[in-house]
Amino acid sequence: MIETPYLLFLGDAPDMLATKVAIGIKDWRPDASVGQFRMEGCKADLGLPDMTIDQAIEAGAKTLVIGVANRGGVISASWKAVLLEALEKGMDIASGLHNLLKDEADLAAAAMMHGCTLFDVRVPLTEFPIANGKKRTGKRCLPVGTDCSVGKMYTGLAMEKEMHARGMKSTFRPTGQTGILITGGGIPLDAVVADFMAGSVEYLTPDNDADHWDLIEGQGSLFHVSYSGVTMALIHGGQPDALVLCHEPTRAHMRGLPDYQQPSLQKLRDVALTLARVANPACEVIGISVNTQHLSEAEADEYLAKVESEMGLPTVDPFRQGAGRLVDALAAC
Amino acid sequence: MIETPYLLFLGDAPDMLATKVAIGIKDWRPDASVGQFRMEGCKADLGLPDMTIDQAIEAGAKTLVIGVANRGGVISASWKAVLLEALEKGMDIASGLHNLLKDEADLAAAAMMHGCTLFDVRVPLTEFPIANGKKRTGKRCLPVGTDCSVGKMYTGLAMEKEMHARGMKSTFRPTGQTGILITGGGIPLDAVVADFMAGSVEYLTPDNDADHWDLIEGQGSLFHVSYSGVTMALIHGGQPDALVLCHEPTRAHMRGLPDYQQPSLQKLRDVALTLARVANPACEVIGISVNTQHLSEAEADEYLAKVESEMGLPTVDPFRQGAGRLVDALAAC
Repeated sequence: MIETPYLLFLGDAPDMLATKVAIGIKDWRPDASVGQFRMEGCKADLGLPDMTIDQAIEAGAKTLVIGVANRGGVISASWKAVLLEALEKGMDIASGLHNLLKDEADLAAAAMMHGCTLFDVRVPLTEFPIANGKKRTGKRCLPVGTDCSVGKMYTGLAMEKEMHARGMKSTFRPTGQTGILITGGGIPLDAVVADFMAGSVEYLTPDNDADHWDLIEGQGSLFHVSYSGVTMALIHGGQPDALVLCHEPTRAHMRGLPDYQQPSLQKLRDVALTLARVANPACEVIGISVNTQHLSEAEADEYLAKVESEMGLPTVDPFRQGAGRLVDALAAC
Repeated sequence: MIETPYLLFLGDAPDMLATKVAIGIKDWRPDASVGQFRMEGCKADLGLPDMTIDQAIEAGAKTLVIGVANRGGVISASWKAVLLEALEKGMDIASGLHNLLKDEADLAAAAMMHGCTLFDVRVPLTEFPIANGKKRTGKRCLPVGTDCSVGKMYTGLAMEKEMHARGMKSTFRPTGQTGILITGGGIPLDAVVADFMAGSVEYLTPDNDADHWDLIEGQGSLFHVSYSGVTMALIHGGQPDALVLCHEPTRAHMRGLPDYQQPSLQKLRDVALTLARVANPACEVIGISVNTQHLSEAEADEYLAKVESEMGLPTVDPFRQGAGRLVDALAAC
C-alpha cells in the first residue's frame, strides 16, 4: 500500500488534461493530499495549497505522487531535481507512467540510499495464482462497458462514495493505474501475464463479510477486440453478483477502432450476463450508468428516460445525478 | 524459428506420459527428428534410433529438444552433462519447461561460449503491439472447446495434415509450448502480458493469400474461469472465419474446477459465435471435433451420430476418423 497523505506533483503540466491522475485523486480522496507541487510554467491548478518539498513534509506528506503525464508517459529530466529532493528528504514516490521510476538509475540509487520506496503502479508486485473459481463469501459488483473509457471507474467510485455515506460495507477494488493511485492499492490488470489474470482478480477480491460489496474497477469491454480478454478475466475472476452496464452514447465508433461499432445495451447485457453466470449463476444486471457529458441536460434526461424504459433498469449518469439509484438496486440484490 | 532436425531428449523419463512433447513432435513432424537420446533408467521409447550427441550431429541434428517433463517442470541436475555436451558441440537447445534454460548459469555460459541458442518457448521473445482489429487478408480457423485439454491442438494439426495432403494452403499457428516445439515457432500466449494478448495473435496470423488458411491453436475455453481471458483474446485477435467446436464427452467436471460443469455444445456455439462475430461478422461454426478416447468404438460412433444430428454439423473424432470432413466443410466455407 502506498502511504498517505500525498503531495501531488503536477510538474510542468501544459494543461489540466495532463493532470487527470491528480484530478482523480483530489476528486475521490479529497483528504489524501496535503497540497500540490507546481514547477515554473505549470498550466494546471487543482486549487490545493502550493507547497515545497519541505512544506509538504512539515504538513505530514509521506508520498510524492506523479499526478501528471507528459507526452510518451516518460519521466521528464526537468522533474528530476524535485524527485531527488523528495527522496533525499525521506518521501516515497508513486507513479503510473510507462517509464518506470525504478529504471531511472539516479532515482533508484537515491531511494536505496535514503530508505524510500518507488511505487511503479504499472508493474504487478505480486506473483498471482491461477484462478481456482471457488465461490467466495461477500458480494461483488462489476461495471461492464459497451466500449473502453465510458465511465466504469467513475461509476464504481461514485457507488462506493454513496455506499459509505449510507454506512454500507464496500471497497473499491482498483484494476488500473489511476485507480491504484487514487486508493493506494490494487492490481494493474493489463500488465499481468495472461495465465494469471483471473487469479489476480480473485486475489484482489477475497472472502469478505456476507454484507460487504467489492466494487471492482472494470477494464476494456467484451466488445473491444484489443482488450476483451482482460474484461473476460474480470468477469470470471471477479465472479460478480451484480453487473452495471456502462455506456457513452455519442461515440462514432469503438475507441481506437474506426471499423467497429459499439454493441447495443441489450447485446452487452445478454453476452455479459451469460458469461458472468458461468462463474456465478446468481449474477444479475442491476442498473445502467451513462456518461452524458457530451449531451445537454435536456438531451441527457431524455436519453436516460428512453434507455430506462427500454431496458427496464435504473439508468443514471452518476456524475449528474449521483449513484443513489444504482446503490438502491444493489441494496435490493 | 528453432532449427531442425531435432534430437529428442527423453532423459530419465519415468514413463511414456512424461514424454508427451516428444510424442507430439514425432507424431506430427515425423521428419523433424533424427533420433532420441535416452539416459540410463529411461522408461520411454519413441521407436526412433537411439543416438549419442556425436551421432546426432553426424546425422545433421541442429537442436536438442527437451521432450520430457519431470515433476515440477524443472531442469534436472542429472541432465546437465548431456545438455552441456550438446552446447559444447554446437547444438542449440529448446525447452518448454517452467524453469528456463537461460536461468541456468552453466547452460547460459556454455551457450554464449559456443555461439549456441537456448530457446525457452515459454517466454515470448517479441514485444507485441496492442491489437488494432484491422481486417486481414487470408482465412483463419480456430478450434474452441467446452473445456481445456479436449483436443484443440490435435484437431488443428490433423486438419493441417489433411489440407497439405490435398494441396490446400494452410499453416498451423501454435499458441502453446508443445505446438511451438512441434512446428519450431509460434507464440506462448499464456505468458503474454494481458494488454498485448490479442495483438500477439494478430502478429501470429498476418495478411496472407486469399485462399490460405491459418489453423490457430486454441487455448483454454470461454467457459473455463481460469483461462477464459486467453480464449477471448484468441477469438478477437484471430478474427476467425471458421470455428470448430471441440468436446470431450466423459468429463465429470471442468478440468481442475470440481464445482464447474462443461457447457452444452449449443451454448458453446452460441456464445463463441456471438463473440467471434464482433471481429468477423462472417464467422461460421463449420464442424465439431470430439475426443472419444474414453469411449468404445461403438459408443463413439453412436455419440458422434447423435451430436451430428442434434447440431446439424459434421461431427468427427479426428484421431479415429481423420479430419477429412472438417476440411471438406472448411473448403466449402
